[in-house]
Amino acid sequence: MDIFDRAREITLVGSIGSILSWDQETYLPSGSADYRSEQLSYLAAHAHKLATSEDFLKSLAAAEASDDGSDLTRTANLRELRRETDRSVKIPTEFVARQSTAESAAHHAWIAARKASDFSLFAPHLQSLVDFALEKADLWGFASEPYDALLEGFERGTSTAAIAALFDDLVEKLTPLSAQAVAKTKASAPTLPDGPYPIRSQQDFNALIAAEIGFDFHTGRIDTTTHPFCTTLGPHDIRLTTRYEDSDFTSSLFGVMHEAGHGMYEQGVPTSDFGLPSGSAVSLGIHESQSRLWENQVGRSPEFWEKFYPIAQQYFPQLKRFALTDFLKYIHRAEFSPVRVEADEATYDLHIILRFRIERMLLNREITVAQVPDTWNGLFEQSFGFAPTDDANGCLQDIHWSMGGIGYFPTYTLGNINAAQLFTAATSVPEIAKATAAADYKPLLTWLRENIHSHGGSFDPPVLMQQATGKPPSTEDYLGHLAARYL
Amino acid sequence: MDIFDRAREITLVGSIGSILSWDQETYLPSGSADYRSEQLSYLAAHAHKLATSEDFLKSLAAAEASDDGSDLTRTANLRELRRETDRSVKIPTEFVARQSTAESAAHHAWIAARKASDFSLFAPHLQSLVDFALEKADLWGFASEPYDALLEGFERGTSTAAIAALFDDLVEKLTPLSAQAVAKTKASAPTLPDGPYPIRSQQDFNALIAAEIGFDFHTGRIDTTTHPFCTTLGPHDIRLTTRYEDSDFTSSLFGVMHEAGHGMYEQGVPTSDFGLPSGSAVSLGIHESQSRLWENQVGRSPEFWEKFYPIAQQYFPQLKRFALTDFLKYIHRAEFSPVRVEADEATYDLHIILRFRIERMLLNREITVAQVPDTWNGLFEQSFGFAPTDDANGCLQDIHWSMGGIGYFPTYTLGNINAAQLFTAATSVPEIAKATAAADYKPLLTWLRENIHSHGGSFDPPVLMQQATGKPPSTEDYLGHLAARYL
Repeated sequence: MDIFDRAREITLVGSIGSILSWDQETYLPSGSADYRSEQLSYLAAHAHKLATSEDFLKSLAAAEASDDGSDLTRTANLRELRRETDRSVKIPTEFVARQSTAESAAHHAWIAARKASDFSLFAPHLQSLVDFALEKADLWGFASEPYDALLEGFERGTSTAAIAALFDDLVEKLTPLSAQAVAKTKASAPTLPDGPYPIRSQQDFNALIAAEIGFDFHTGRIDTTTHPFCTTLGPHDIRLTTRYEDSDFTSSLFGVMHEAGHGMYEQGVPTSDFGLPSGSAVSLGIHESQSRLWENQVGRSPEFWEKFYPIAQQYFPQLKRFALTDFLKYIHRAEFSPVRVEADEATYDLHIILRFRIERMLLNREITVAQVPDTWNGLFEQSFGFAPTDDANGCLQDIHWSMGGIGYFPTYTLGNINAAQLFTAATSVPEIAKATAAADYKPLLTWLRENIHSHGGSFDPPVLMQQATGKPPSTEDYLGHLAARYL
Repeated sequence: MDIFDRAREITLVGSIGSILSWDQETYLPSGSADYRSEQLSYLAAHAHKLATSEDFLKSLAAAEASDDGSDLTRTANLRELRRETDRSVKIPTEFVARQSTAESAAHHAWIAARKASDFSLFAPHLQSLVDFALEKADLWGFASEPYDALLEGFERGTSTAAIAALFDDLVEKLTPLSAQAVAKTKASAPTLPDGPYPIRSQQDFNALIAAEIGFDFHTGRIDTTTHPFCTTLGPHDIRLTTRYEDSDFTSSLFGVMHEAGHGMYEQGVPTSDFGLPSGSAVSLGIHESQSRLWENQVGRSPEFWEKFYPIAQQYFPQLKRFALTDFLKYIHRAEFSPVRVEADEATYDLHIILRFRIERMLLNREITVAQVPDTWNGLFEQSFGFAPTDDANGCLQDIHWSMGGIGYFPTYTLGNINAAQLFTAATSVPEIAKATAAADYKPLLTWLRENIHSHGGSFDPPVLMQQATGKPPSTEDYLGHLAARYL
């Protein structure tokens, strides 16, 4: 087996773990959580053992030694395998197994804690996950602070300090913009006609829209979970999930468009390279740009609804007494909501920046786990003017920490920035602008396939953005988009 | 790791494979069949490698050498692990991987062939599976004929010749009985009120009944597949599947009661011994006795319906104009149907014996794969008086061969025999008879837990039957049951 066969084997083992995780979220009987943790731990340990084996290291070194640089994809794959390997070998197998068991237990505790809105049920698990994060950061090493080491796992080629500076700048411009947008909504906020919007109708309409924007159901599906996600169980097996509110069909619809954006990226990377960096998504900040572009730049645009609102009215007859102009005002409303996943574009990044700041403080030991609820509520009040009513709508609302995903949140805001920048670049091509204005999204998807998806993980995110848009990531297009939509 | 830890590890890997197989039947996107085959092959090869490793063999030998026979369960576990190991080590790892790939491809070909009712699409795959079966039989060795070696994998302690003799005897008595039962039905056969019986209502009613007879949804669930089955994905994760006809709710109901019978057996074995023979079902002939007992001895009894028919009438209002006496005649009808899974008790074993005879002829090279459809149709006509209309309703109807399960079918008829014998023994206890007559099934389940489930695989099936019923397996109670129900 050469290094590429070995990398594919590790991905195969990982994909089996993803099937088990997907099942855990969708269909696992409640009594079987413990054994599922054992199964997942076993696979995680097995994958780690393969990725850090003598044979793997020797194969990688041999391939590096014989690489003449003539095949750019091969060279990029070796570079990224080296990066991942250098991180992996620093984490002992027993650590991976312990961490996986802790994450699985934390996940179940989080579900119970969120249900009971009782942070104390989750606190010991969060403590354990923070300890794991700090231990990992020490094992990996970091330039300035532990958060750097974690961030690199989600978004390569940036730093905590750079993110913090970018976010400080964004907050400065977003704070007045969001306040203005919220005030405007308060002055004139139409209410969606009463439900029920039957779940079966939502499922049918969502599937129609997902197919329309380009999600391929031959290699994917949609199921129901508490927290929506997209996961890759194989090169041709991409699964989305969503959740339903029978009082508002747009909640699941925009959720599905978001996850379908992730899914179309996964469906667009070179599947023949599945298991290699060149056949994988490059980073979460680029991943999130795909989901946000389809959710926001496309899904919340007037052009989209000019075509699809009449169809929505067929699925949900009560919309027939609600004009398109009112519907657009409804989906462009801005509110200071306590719940991130329900936040609008004008306020979303304030939620993210709050989480980033809490994570950073936890890892720098500036606050303890016990202080998380108070810190959360205090920071929240500063941005939004009120505190969440309870932990379920506050620091317990997100799945991420329960899965050990500390360092993940900043990629959401990077995604928003990248989405606006990519959409602006794509629609600067006249044919794409014309098709998009008529809600025909094939040319847009083709542009994304060519400029982003087809490159997999061969280039660093800033290089990829430069190639695709002619400039490095910046907040300019994003702030322009928000101003145009909300002011 | 001692031999018991190693056995548990192999079961854990197998349980992960079962999750993937379950998902393949229930939710896998159609485009992802190939990669799922790779994932399954990988796990099968990994499990086989573990089960035939030097370390495993040494651990087993060491445990055997130090066993003083004072712990009967430990001794039984070592005896059964030795039996399985002696069979495993004779099959090379590469053979297991090749076979697993072939089975997965055959399974998908079978789905397509059945849909098109075109045996030629499946024939090359069946040839390959027969070749694998013969190759395995040669590797394992056998007393009289290749079928013996395959049968032992499903039902230990019997022989092809013994089964053939038992089946010849059964056919002799069943042929006149089934003909009489069919004639009686023809003379007076009420028709179920027209559908639709909405699938959602069927699901709700089935779940109510499954819970009522003792299936635990805390450690189990029900999904939808083309071919119903029950699978164990962990000690507390037992999954049933069924399929729905909206013209007849009894099809999915009896399917669920059948699979729930399997599921309650799996829920009843000692879960702390999960992964060891003492924590596993003993054989398919005993397994099938549990499913058939709940489906037929319980589910088709007048006592059951005296209690549950009024509830069924609430779920399916059209039953309100159909008297219980007519409903009982309807579910006790006997017909010569081409489809095994829809066959009634009076004719079911004729289907099984036909399959057993074809398998035996294939393995003894008395017929070729190409002759299967004609042989099937000819034998079918001898028993039933007419030939199936097409292969989809003939030799393509069952999933078993497509999964490599040659040698499996006889255990269905063994199950029927065992079910009647166990039910007769249990209801010879006055309190159980009294409760069962009032459709209270807790005492019956408790008796099965004590006499069958709790022993796991510690005793050979004939010993288990002798202990539970006071006599070895015989057709007496079964023929008595059929005569009482149909004549």
